[in-house]
Amino acid sequence: ARTGIAEAVFCLHKSAQDLHPIIRFNIENSTPVLLTRLSQQQWLALPLELQNALDYDECSETAIINGSQKLSTKNDVCIVSAGTSDQAVAMEAKRTLAFNGYQAPIFADLGVAGLWRLMEKIDELRQYKIIIALAGMEGALFSVLAGLVRAPIIAVPISVGYGVSAGGNTALGSALASCSPGILTVNIDNGFGAANAAIKILNQFSE
Amino acid sequence: ARTGIAEAVFCLHKSAQDLHPIIRFNIENSTPVLLTRLSQQQWLALPLELQNALDYDECSETAIINGSQKLSTKNDVCIVSAGTSDQAVAMEAKRTLAFNGYQAPIFADLGVAGLWRLMEKIDELRQYKIIIALAGMEGALFSVLAGLVRAPIIAVPISVGYGVSAGGNTALGSALASCSPGILTVNIDNGFGAANAAIKILNQFSE
Amino acid sequence: ARTGIAEAVFCLHKSAQDLHPIIRFNIENSTPVLLTRLSQQQWLALPLELQNALDYDECSETAIINGSQKLSTKNDVCIVSAGTSDQAVAMEAKRTLAFNGYQAPIFADLGVAGLWRLMEKIDELRQYKIIIALAGMEGALFSVLAGLVRAPIIAVPISVGYGVSAGGNTALGSALASCSPGILTVNIDNGFGAANAAIKILNQFSE
Amino acid sequence: ARTGIAEAVFCLHKSAQDLHPIIRFNIENSTPVLLTRLSQQQWLALPLELQNALDYDECSETAIINGSQKLSTKNDVCIVSAGTSDQAVAMEAKRTLAFNGYQAPIFADLGVAGLWRLMEKIDELRQYKIIIALAGMEGALFSVLAGLVRAPIIAVPISVGYGVSAGGNTALGSALASCSPGILTVNIDNGFGAANAAIKILNQFSE
Amino acid sequence: ARTGIAEAVFCLHKSAQDLHPIIRFNIENSTPVLLTRLSQQQWLALPLELQNALDYDECSETAIINGSQKLSTKNDVCIVSAGTSDQAVAMEAKRTLAFNGYQAPIFADLGVAGLWRLMEKIDELRQYKIIIALAGMEGALFSVLAGLVRAPIIAVPISVGYGVSAGGNTALGSALASCSPGILTVNIDNGFGAANAAIKILNQFSE
Amino acid sequence: ARTGIAEAVFCLHKSAQDLHPIIRFNIENSTPVLLTRLSQQQWLALPLELQNALDYDECSETAIINGSQKLSTKNDVCIVSAGTSDQAVAMEAKRTLAFNGYQAPIFADLGVAGLWRLMEKIDELRQYKIIIALAGMEGALFSVLAGLVRAPIIAVPISVGYGVSAGGNTALGSALASCSPGILTVNIDNGFGAANAAIKILNQFSE
Amino acid sequence: ARTGIAEAVFCLHKSAQDLHPIIRFNIENSTPVLLTRLSQQQWLALPLELQNALDYDECSETAIINGSQKLSTKNDVCIVSAGTSDQAVAMEAKRTLAFNGYQAPIFADLGVAGLWRLMEKIDELRQYKIIIALAGMEGALFSVLAGLVRAPIIAVPISVGYGVSAGGNTALGSALASCSPGILTVNIDNGFGAANAAIKILNQFSE
Amino acid sequence: ARTGIAEAVFCLHKSAQDLHPIIRFNIENSTPVLLTRLSQQQWLALPLELQNALDYDECSETAIINGSQKLSTKNDVCIVSAGTSDQAVAMEAKRTLAFNGYQAPIFADLGVAGLWRLMEKIDELRQYKIIIALAGMEGALFSVLAGLVRAPIIAVPISVGYGVSAGGNTALGSALASCSPGILTVNIDNGFGAANAAIKILNQFSE
Ligand SMILES: Nc1ncnc2c1ncn2[C@@H]1O[C@H](COP(=O)(O)O)[C@@H](O)[C@H]1O
Ligand SMILES: Nc1ncnc2c1ncn2[C@@H]1O[C@H](COP(=O)(O)O)[C@@H](O)[C@H]1O
Ligand SMILES: Nc1ncnc2c1ncn2[C@@H]1O[C@H](COP(=O)(O)O)[C@@H](O)[C@H]1O
Ligand SMILES: Nc1ncnc2c1ncn2[C@@H]1O[C@H](COP(=O)(O)O)[C@@H](O)[C@H]1O
Ligand SMILES: [Mg+2]
Ligand SMILES: [Mg+2]
Ligand SMILES: [Mg+2]
Ligand SMILES: [Mg+2]
Ligand SMILES: [Mg+2]
Ligand SMILES: [Mg+2]
Ligand SMILES: [Mg+2]
Ligand SMILES: [Mg+2]
Repeated sequence: ARTGIAEAVFCLHKSAQDLHPIIRFNIENSTPVLLTRLSQQQWLALPLELQNALDYDECSETAIINGSQKLSTKNDVCIVSAGTSDQAVAMEAKRTLAFNGYQAPIFADLGVAGLWRLMEKIDELRQYKIIIALAGMEGALFSVLAGLVRAPIIAVPISVGYGVSAGGNTALGSALASCSPGILTVNIDNGFGAANAAIKILNQFSE
Repeated sequence: ARTGIAEAVFCLHKSAQDLHPIIRFNIENSTPVLLTRLSQQQWLALPLELQNALDYDECSETAIINGSQKLSTKNDVCIVSAGTSDQAVAMEAKRTLAFNGYQAPIFADLGVAGLWRLMEKIDELRQYKIIIALAGMEGALFSVLAGLVRAPIIAVPISVGYGVSAGGNTALGSALASCSPGILTVNIDNGFGAANAAIKILNQFSE
Repeated sequence: ARTGIAEAVFCLHKSAQDLHPIIRFNIENSTPVLLTRLSQQQWLALPLELQNALDYDECSETAIINGSQKLSTKNDVCIVSAGTSDQAVAMEAKRTLAFNGYQAPIFADLGVAGLWRLMEKIDELRQYKIIIALAGMEGALFSVLAGLVRAPIIAVPISVGYGVSAGGNTALGSALASCSPGILTVNIDNGFGAANAAIKILNQFSE
Repeated sequence: ARTGIAEAVFCLHKSAQDLHPIIRFNIENSTPVLLTRLSQQQWLALPLELQNALDYDECSETAIINGSQKLSTKNDVCIVSAGTSDQAVAMEAKRTLAFNGYQAPIFADLGVAGLWRLMEKIDELRQYKIIIALAGMEGALFSVLAGLVRAPIIAVPISVGYGVSAGGNTALGSALASCSPGILTVNIDNGFGAANAAIKILNQFSE
Repeated sequence: ARTGIAEAVFCLHKSAQDLHPIIRFNIENSTPVLLTRLSQQQWLALPLELQNALDYDECSETAIINGSQKLSTKNDVCIVSAGTSDQAVAMEAKRTLAFNGYQAPIFADLGVAGLWRLMEKIDELRQYKIIIALAGMEGALFSVLAGLVRAPIIAVPISVGYGVSAGGNTALGSALASCSPGILTVNIDNGFGAANAAIKILNQFSE
Repeated sequence: ARTGIAEAVFCLHKSAQDLHPIIRFNIENSTPVLLTRLSQQQWLALPLELQNALDYDECSETAIINGSQKLSTKNDVCIVSAGTSDQAVAMEAKRTLAFNGYQAPIFADLGVAGLWRLMEKIDELRQYKIIIALAGMEGALFSVLAGLVRAPIIAVPISVGYGVSAGGNTALGSALASCSPGILTVNIDNGFGAANAAIKILNQFSE
Repeated sequence: ARTGIAEAVFCLHKSAQDLHPIIRFNIENSTPVLLTRLSQQQWLALPLELQNALDYDECSETAIINGSQKLSTKNDVCIVSAGTSDQAVAMEAKRTLAFNGYQAPIFADLGVAGLWRLMEKIDELRQYKIIIALAGMEGALFSVLAGLVRAPIIAVPISVGYGVSAGGNTALGSALASCSPGILTVNIDNGFGAANAAIKILNQFSE
Repeated sequence: ARTGIAEAVFCLHKSAQDLHPIIRFNIENSTPVLLTRLSQQQWLALPLELQNALDYDECSETAIINGSQKLSTKNDVCIVSAGTSDQAVAMEAKRTLAFNGYQAPIFADLGVAGLWRLMEKIDELRQYKIIIALAGMEGALFSVLAGLVRAPIIAVPISVGYGVSAGGNTALGSALASCSPGILTVNIDNGFGAANAAIKILNQFSE
């Protein structure tokens, strides 16, 4: 609240006992809350009545309690992903933005191995104030994109890949070491954090 | 230019032969250029006439050619540093911002070991749209600050310290793994990159 | 014994064959013993009679044989945790302290993202001679706390998190590199070790 | 002050310009201050009058301004080092303790390669409430010592060695992963931090 | 053969299809073969007739085909382990030695946290020409032992532990960086390799 | 010889005593030899007569003895570099190729931050059978290039940069983890190795 | 297409929903497609009709849609593997080559521990224009082979092994740091990439 | 002494003040002592009389006080090195062996890139009971040698090289992960330790 960001609960290491009271309390108080990293298994373990009260999305492992505000549609922010494997994190970002009132389209599969696909979309991408970009493997998308647009790039390294790219550290290094200025980085797979940073920027400049 | 950022030359690995023609060319063409990582030794090796044509700052190792535009003074961005050792990078950020037309005050020595010093300044810091924060060692400043203000935090991990913090990786990890949402990270010691990201944001929202 | 610490058995890599005789022997000899890292699965694999003879706590994966000594309640030591995910290790520390005769309250969920929650409790925390602090992700709690109290801080980095904080190394680095003096560190997730160090200190100064 | 620790200045990355005013200010105000990581080169660059006003020790690279309080001599704490190469850090710890009023003898060269030397001293070491232990290379001293005494061990990994032990990370790992309970660790080469932690403990229990 | 070592098959990544023909062929040809890293699951997947033809040991995951030579019992080599968790690797070493004709007793649970247990056995250990030592966690046993005996120590770091010692790298570093001369190291958990090196030494000096 | 590659001497760790006889011997025998990593300091320490007998290039730190064969000019191979800082390694590759009879032009400064510069040259680059690409920092050039041309890319990660890209590991990771197929990697800064691999390919297919 | 490489789909992180439409679409359009990292579990989850339309190989986890072109058999390329555990990756390379029209025999089990086995085959190996070599553990095969043949070596480090070789990084380091010139490296376990690089070379030189 | 190894002083981090008394004391007492890692600079800083009393070798940075015992010449041990850059460490091993009474010839420049040079010497190498092998870069020599001889190999990884092999960790990994059994490893550049281990073996088996 003090920071302008709506409340979120990080469910990764939480047991059923931890989650029940938090969810029930917020439903009863009509507080809007975002649950992240709520696995399908954790969700299925909830009593049916709680399951139904959640707007749950299995791909991004997010759930929204008392969501439903109107979405701003002013081309504030879009999400660009390098490959199909980045979809879950792209959705986490999109849902976090929506929960805070910002609509954000996803432009998927624009990795630099097929540069022409990115170039076909570049004028459309240039319409957005902020771009959240997601890429795993070697993360070359961040640098290429930052060199082509005026928007700041919020880079989300993705933990897809194997060998030296397993875990996302190579893509993280690429985001941080990029020779294109204006790239800002968040933790590996942190679609939630990328969205929150975009929200903080938009909140600061929207009044 | 395509990205709204004025031209900059990264001098870290450049020899005298590399630098002379670049500098002379830009002076003659009255192009504004920012030189970063230009060590005092590199600067002193330039012919006196070139030395004099540069607005050189030894602390930040930056030089400006044909600078001197008027500075915007709208509380757009400020720079917060944890300790005295962060001064060089703070100055690199400040000079990069100034070169692009944005004035940014530095609030020094607000590390969390002396939390009351940060708390005394917090209301003043809350006036700024964007905060660039610098910290070495364990980088706890990023998390504390992000939990107290509405502004997005651009975190610059600093390579001061020894033992496990030598090289800046511990502070980098802290910026990326922070439990306070809304932190954006750039490479270790990259005051230039932090400033450019802020400039991209300000450019996007200023018209 | 030579070191003033009661006997403990580390069960992490032990098979059923390894555990049976140790447990039975100590029950029969009325020796107080602490079992750590005894998973629920390992516990359930014990014969019912042994299960019943153990004071088992599933959250901390500890079991106590012949425990039950009176607890000292002199505000010697308390346990502060950053988030809900640190609960298991907090309980391991609390149970180890209790097994050795020291009562220690847990102050949960005082992470620095919500600094005001920590500040509301700070005067109460200042009553304790030693503070065991637990934090995962970026571990900023250690530095903030150490700058606010006279007590030595025993920092326990927690392996919660993902991306760069997965495994606890970022929090470990923060504890070791902290700019607040007086922080002492133990291994990641080592609530047992933190408690033992506190016990050694209390034993040395209690007579 | 809030934490019971006297003021200290970390000089590692500070220029002459940074240091002059701090030193002069404190001399003039008769404030006791400890300077650490003040290299001989930095010290020699000071004006003679400032050099003379400092109680400088070249081995530990520490300087004391307005020191000279009486030392407590109650066997509170001693310093044990594994080899000759640990002397500089041992002295940093000793000087920090003295500056805060605690005398601490150094027991040098007790590495486990010559176990009998350690065993000859063990009864004398057992007289101390707290032991600060220093070791580089593989750091086996920490485990052996912690298994032999009732005192808590504050382990300082030392960056001596070459190959896998270069930089001190092997000794750091040994301190953290030790199978002997009751070991507390500080950053590599951090004699200052080890002493401060000991001081915090002694302050808490001395009234 | 060319190297004096009997044939061994490493089964870790081998499928049932890979293993069947190898095993059957050697049984039929009466060739003595040692199988290592043959998990109980792999063993159970073999046809009953092959299972029975193997001398299988589940603890060390080794199987011997056509073994049964007489064992030399000349105090050539013994195996010292720090804790119960090292048992599987100790058995792998013992079985490899036996397969090559050398008997080797295991001295278990001699970790340095309880130094007196090691000291009680030290005269007996001094009877052996070569000592294979196993330790996980911080691996201090290697240094202490090497400082007490004339025998060369073959150190086997063990992957037990958690936090910084998970995976065995801390113990490996301790073996390599030890300040006690005469320690020789093999890969983490490589009881097989330690035994083979001992066998090569014994073969070279036995005629 | 057996491998079709002319003899080369790696001078990095060689003293004057090591180098004199090698150089003199080859001059006297009229053997063509390539010296790599021969620093200007090492070169200047040679007797004047040897200095003069060497075709020395200070930028790439290479020297050629008895070189001067005719160069093949069939668009076999070209060298593409991301920035000015890659010049020394580019020259090492070019000189190695020339020494083996292959001419290779350098296309400098084609990093992806200025994608249009690369696109302006792309049709010219497509004329070459093999492309050696050099990039430091985040190494995005490798992926972009490999997605645009039919030629195999031999990627040489460069150790320029600071923070996470210091030492070249981020660029190395990008080359190996690239999502564009057909990239082959050599060691960081290994212009010599890249050239040799190209030579082996050209030799295999040229007869 | 632009790069001369037939289309491939990387299935590692793809769900059933992702895969169905891609597969069906390509079957219907008679486009030749290679699927890599398609686990048996993913394959079994496909509708029977799609399963049957795929030429699936369980060992290499590859599937081919509309494959069946004639294979070139001109001794262009062969695959050499160090051990049985490298078989899956060897098959991935072989199938990728076949899908692109190149036949490649596999020479298995030629690791340097049994150097004579390699030497017996060396003349046969010398017939091939390009050699793809696979090795895990310490990867010595790459250096030995590169010193014996004229062909360029494409090295594929394999993630077999345990301890320091777990994950394939030791073999990767050996390929990159080899003292034998002419070795080109791809990502750990990347048989697909090695084959594609070979195909790009063969395509370039085959007309 | 207790371990059968003559006394050695490790001079790497020792100042002139540390060294003078040690050296003078041992000269006066006629104790044989080996000084290792005594740089030429440290040696030149000694008073002339001490310099002259030392048998100093600048290449290996070793000095011997009161050496001169007769050397055993029974083909006990030899030293094999991969390249010229390994000479300093080879000499450290040779001098340590000589100081303890064992003569050991050096076979230089037998790296596997030129396998035939190793094969030409292999019968001569087979005469030795123990082989100390030195290799930097990728360290393939260890595996090849261990597969060809009956002697145990003591592997010394060397810190020559650049990029991924800088510092010696790649060669260390190769020694530990080798698929040839019977390799024993010591720390990077530790010729002293390799020699001591050989001496311990020879002492054990020589009476
Ligand atoms: N996916 C996520 N990644 C990182 N932090 C998160 C995520 N979801 C929620 N958080 C943060 O986690 C904190 C809530 O943690 P907890 O109190 O354990 O639920 C808040 O500070 C959130 O901003
Ligand atoms: N959770 C724990 N973490 C680290 N060490 C432990 C733990 N629990 C017990 N220990 C130590 O492990 C040793 C007992 O090991 P063991 O003999 O294998 O049961 C004792 O030194 C204990 O102090
Ligand atoms: N086994 C593999 N390893 C690495 N990259 C691959 C592999 N298989 C396919 N690819 C690449 O992955 C991309 C296809 O990814 P996707 O669009 O997610 O199917 C193409 O660029 C392929 O060249
Ligand atoms: N080059 C070396 N590498 C590793 N250890 C050494 C070396 N030289 C001497 N030592 C050991 O260092 C110890 C002597 O250290 P110090 O007392 O500091 O001289 C003895 O245990 C020696 O065995
Ligand atoms: Mg991607
Ligand atoms: Mg700081
Ligand atoms: Mg936490
Ligand atoms: Mg030491
Ligand atoms: Mg152990
Ligand atoms: Mg570059
Ligand atoms: Mg292999
Ligand atoms: Mg070598």
